[in-house]
Amino acid sequence: MAGKKVLIVYAHQEPKSFNGSLKKVAVEELSKQGCTVTVSDLYSMNFEPRATRNDITGALSNPEVFSYGIETHEAYKKKALTSDILEEQRKVQEADLVIFQFPLYWFSVPAILKGWMDRVLCRGFAFDIPGFYDSGFLKGKLALLSLTTGGTAEMYTKDGISGDFRYFLWPLQHGTLHFCGFKVLAPQISFGLDVSSEEEKKVMLASWAQRLKSIWKEEPIHCTPPWYFQE
Amino acid sequence: MAGKKVLIVYAHQEPKSFNGSLKKVAVEELSKQGCTVTVSDLYSMNFEPRATRNDITGALSNPEVFSYGIETHEAYKKKALTSDILEEQRKVQEADLVIFQFPLYWFSVPAILKGWMDRVLCRGFAFDIPGFYDSGFLKGKLALLSLTTGGTAEMYTKDGISGDFRYFLWPLQHGTLHFCGFKVLAPQISFGLDVSSEEEKKVMLASWAQRLKSIWKEEPIHCTPPWYFQE
Repeated sequence: MAGKKVLIVYAHQEPKSFNGSLKKVAVEELSKQGCTVTVSDLYSMNFEPRATRNDITGALSNPEVFSYGIETHEAYKKKALTSDILEEQRKVQEADLVIFQFPLYWFSVPAILKGWMDRVLCRGFAFDIPGFYDSGFLKGKLALLSLTTGGTAEMYTKDGISGDFRYFLWPLQHGTLHFCGFKVLAPQISFGLDVSSEEEKKVMLASWAQRLKSIWKEEPIHCTPPWYFQE
Repeated sequence: MAGKKVLIVYAHQEPKSFNGSLKKVAVEELSKQGCTVTVSDLYSMNFEPRATRNDITGALSNPEVFSYGIETHEAYKKKALTSDILEEQRKVQEADLVIFQFPLYWFSVPAILKGWMDRVLCRGFAFDIPGFYDSGFLKGKLALLSLTTGGTAEMYTKDGISGDFRYFLWPLQHGTLHFCGFKVLAPQISFGLDVSSEEEKKVMLASWAQRLKSIWKEEPIHCTPPWYFQE
């Protein structure tokens, strides 16, 4: 939709990968709509995943016993977070929609993307206590997980060997995105890359492009227990 | 138990933290039993969390299109993984029990520990396809998640605002540890650190030490769907 701003947080090492193609398709389709699209290409940025004292510039409020949560909260208020965090926070703040594009690693995001969440979504910026879930500070924004799996869709069903895909998405969709106030759109899951033909991959790419055409009309999913596990 | 080998994978920045104390208590109690205890202190090692081409020494099997999964699988077979991965794999291989000690970050492990999982538990070493879940290559070993939360135990119940704690443990206990063949012991969760008194923290430490006295007699939990969500 013309005028909307989209941030794509992208975590794949290889531009020629299927994840790279999904990202490219999203940039093209959303740009065509007149959206402003920004990409944080985490591997090419060599984004720092480790949550350490280096994230705070200047003095600590308690140099004796380091608490990452306390110190980054204080540093956020004093504008003393390191510049790579501030830059990502600025991108999130401007975005109407944040798309996370990644391959599933151990039922979750790759560590480089987990580090983005750990470091960028800090207290004061993304939430406070109180000030989380429906009153999280990123309320009014949309988020969407677009991921690829090696395993097939059948494996990720309620009675499948890996359980319903909603189960592994819970920490991300509820525990992270909803916690920060995002309204979460249905995930885009490209299943079974290990066993997909080139033709099947083309179909998956086309269906992502097609979905994006009407993405701004979508209703968010329910992220609150116990509904989440019943849908 | 005398003769047993334990690896503690520890992810906290501050030795004086409560996580540091939980780690210390485990080292002391298990050593007293005659176990050999090894600690991987990820922050002090500045452990690399990013899964990149740097993890493979020498030539790639496909330099045109980089696939981390394919290349690390090949590198494992050719003994061409980088030395920090090999060192951690050696520690895992020797261990009868692996304890993960960490603060909950976004319903999951901190990125530095996610990176340990992403990089160390590679195909060929921890699993193959086929060769996962009950036939994962680390079968015969035990694993245990010992974690701390800011939120209270009440928040992490079925009808609580953050849902049952089993839900957020699913990607770790089933999707990662069980996938690699580990038998998973019940998690040790020290809830509500943000609102706990010093006295309450002492009780939590003591209960961890007490549990470790009979840890070798424990039966693993069920990690398979649909049982997992019904217990």
